[in-house]
Amino acid sequence: MKINEFKLILERKNCDFAVFYNSDSAIYSPNMFYFSGYRGLGALIIPKRKQPLVIAPDMELERAGKCLVKKLYRMEKKKFFESVYELAKKNHLKTKRIAIDKSSFTLNSYTHFKKQFKKVKTKDISFECLKLREIKTQDEIRILKKSCSYADKILQKAIGNFSSFKTESEAAAFLEYETKKLGLELSFNPIVASGSNGSMPHYEPSNKKIKNGFCVLDFGIKYKGYCSDITRTIYSGKPSQKEKEIYNLLLKTQKNTINQIKNNKKCSELYNFAITNLGKYKDRFLHGLGHGVGVEIHEMPNLALSSKDKIKNSMIFTIEPGVYFPKKFGIRIEDTILFKNKPIALTKTSKDLLIV
Amino acid sequence: MKINEFKLILERKNCDFAVFYNSDSAIYSPNMFYFSGYRGLGALIIPKRKQPLVIAPDMELERAGKCLVKKLYRMEKKKFFESVYELAKKNHLKTKRIAIDKSSFTLNSYTHFKKQFKKVKTKDISFECLKLREIKTQDEIRILKKSCSYADKILQKAIGNFSSFKTESEAAAFLEYETKKLGLELSFNPIVASGSNGSMPHYEPSNKKIKNGFCVLDFGIKYKGYCSDITRTIYSGKPSQKEKEIYNLLLKTQKNTINQIKNNKKCSELYNFAITNLGKYKDRFLHGLGHGVGVEIHEMPNLALSSKDKIKNSMIFTIEPGVYFPKKFGIRIEDTILFKNKPIALTKTSKDLLIV
Repeated sequence: MKINEFKLILERKNCDFAVFYNSDSAIYSPNMFYFSGYRGLGALIIPKRKQPLVIAPDMELERAGKCLVKKLYRMEKKKFFESVYELAKKNHLKTKRIAIDKSSFTLNSYTHFKKQFKKVKTKDISFECLKLREIKTQDEIRILKKSCSYADKILQKAIGNFSSFKTESEAAAFLEYETKKLGLELSFNPIVASGSNGSMPHYEPSNKKIKNGFCVLDFGIKYKGYCSDITRTIYSGKPSQKEKEIYNLLLKTQKNTINQIKNNKKCSELYNFAITNLGKYKDRFLHGLGHGVGVEIHEMPNLALSSKDKIKNSMIFTIEPGVYFPKKFGIRIEDTILFKNKPIALTKTSKDLLIV
Repeated sequence: MKINEFKLILERKNCDFAVFYNSDSAIYSPNMFYFSGYRGLGALIIPKRKQPLVIAPDMELERAGKCLVKKLYRMEKKKFFESVYELAKKNHLKTKRIAIDKSSFTLNSYTHFKKQFKKVKTKDISFECLKLREIKTQDEIRILKKSCSYADKILQKAIGNFSSFKTESEAAAFLEYETKKLGLELSFNPIVASGSNGSMPHYEPSNKKIKNGFCVLDFGIKYKGYCSDITRTIYSGKPSQKEKEIYNLLLKTQKNTINQIKNNKKCSELYNFAITNLGKYKDRFLHGLGHGVGVEIHEMPNLALSSKDKIKNSMIFTIEPGVYFPKKFGIRIEDTILFKNKPIALTKTSKDLLIV
């Protein structure tokens, strides 16, 4: 996506080309996927004024052949960046100033890179990539809507079957199975956190019995590489009056916060609004209000108190307040929202407290 | 694991402490998990002569409380490495020379790190960590055996049900469901590659119909954070004489290569042995012969032609020759092997050509 916009950035920054890579194991480059649709081993070069190039090892060539970049090369050299260097030479690219993504470039890779590109100056373009990715194209919006609609469908199926699950793991396994069966991927490992486990926002499901009380279901899929994210909290058994009150306060907070979203709104203001709405429970809110979603599950904008980001048209992000009572329970309600003149929830599963 | 051995390395390298981290998204530190059992957001400090410390944000504190490290701190500061710096101060640690893992430390994190630890010298200990992790402890061997035995059981169940799967995605989903239902994790996304898709070693299953012919099933789980890895290639329909010949040649190559494993054997020699055994098909072998497995799915030793590694007692690694015929088919046979005076296959599923 947005290759032409990216080339203008390279022009402005006076870089000869940008290089992104996925080397043996280590780190996955979301930007390589964003610009090329390729996420196997290898590297992507985007020259300032030429067509992009992908280079991949033998074992990945057939798979790389299916990506958006049409100029595909085989890694001939044993050393990763030696091949990348040869590729730049072969294509007569200048190597005076190269743009790299310093948020996914490791110190060790950089040492190897500099052994080949000896006199090069590097320029970090991680922030520019995040800013490009923050505003979605029409194509991306279409894909993300579909991603959210799949997430809704699968989550609803899991909720419908919830009473048949004995363990948290079984519920998580069901969510995954339904995802994979449709040829989709998870955008993160589903969280199924019942009873007191719900007070850990990043809890990992265990094969212990589902406890009575609140159960947090946090789930998202990837469709064509694009993430969705939704959380619903349901209840097994009979909630107390106080539990119902807390749930409804959180739900009101989430809905009211969504209604506050407008063009140029500061994300920190949205956070503050949510906190204020939580009243005496505001100290039980332990994380950010939300995050952008796209090729990564967490991207810009960042909806935290310390954030300087503002809401703009064609951003897609979550709104997910939660309250956590250690050793007791947790509740979180989350939607993925598109802002297009007004906030539009892309995840549509009912948010009324469901008792199973 | 091996905290005391690691402290000796810090002593030898004259480092005051080592720091590992998982920051907001980006990169996961396998070494942080290896030493602490914690893999959430935060940082791990291992001082040369004191107990290790974990620092985590509010939302992760309860989860971090369950890890091996008993000294747990809350991230008070907004900036990640500011909190880490405060923690070091609070514990009266010298900050002259700090060990870091440069294979999972990004350039951007390093910039933030250096803003806090201004005059510090850093020393890369990525290689030392890999070397520590390469030789498994008795506890790790026990866990890895169990991990392989789960992988066997689940793979066999999938093979038993294979004729009921319509699509590759359905088979992959089944493997995942059975994994998650047991409260286990995948060590990587399962590969189910039928017919001509099998010629792509890292193929991603699609929701297209399973084709007749060979189907590669490459699968592994994580038990207590430790990976297993197994590949079997089965056949739908009736294989031709030539297909059977190629399968049996590959199988003989895999078995004979395993029999060549002994103490101090060079990994490159094992690779060469396999290649020689493949005879006229040697050019159809597109990847390394194998890799260590542990807290990561790919670790040391590296069984490639260019490798300098040698087999030692208590190493656990895969042997996985394969042959790939673009647009036709692929075959791969892989076991996870423990070397303990002799090679012991930890994955035990039958390797005779199974026709379904």
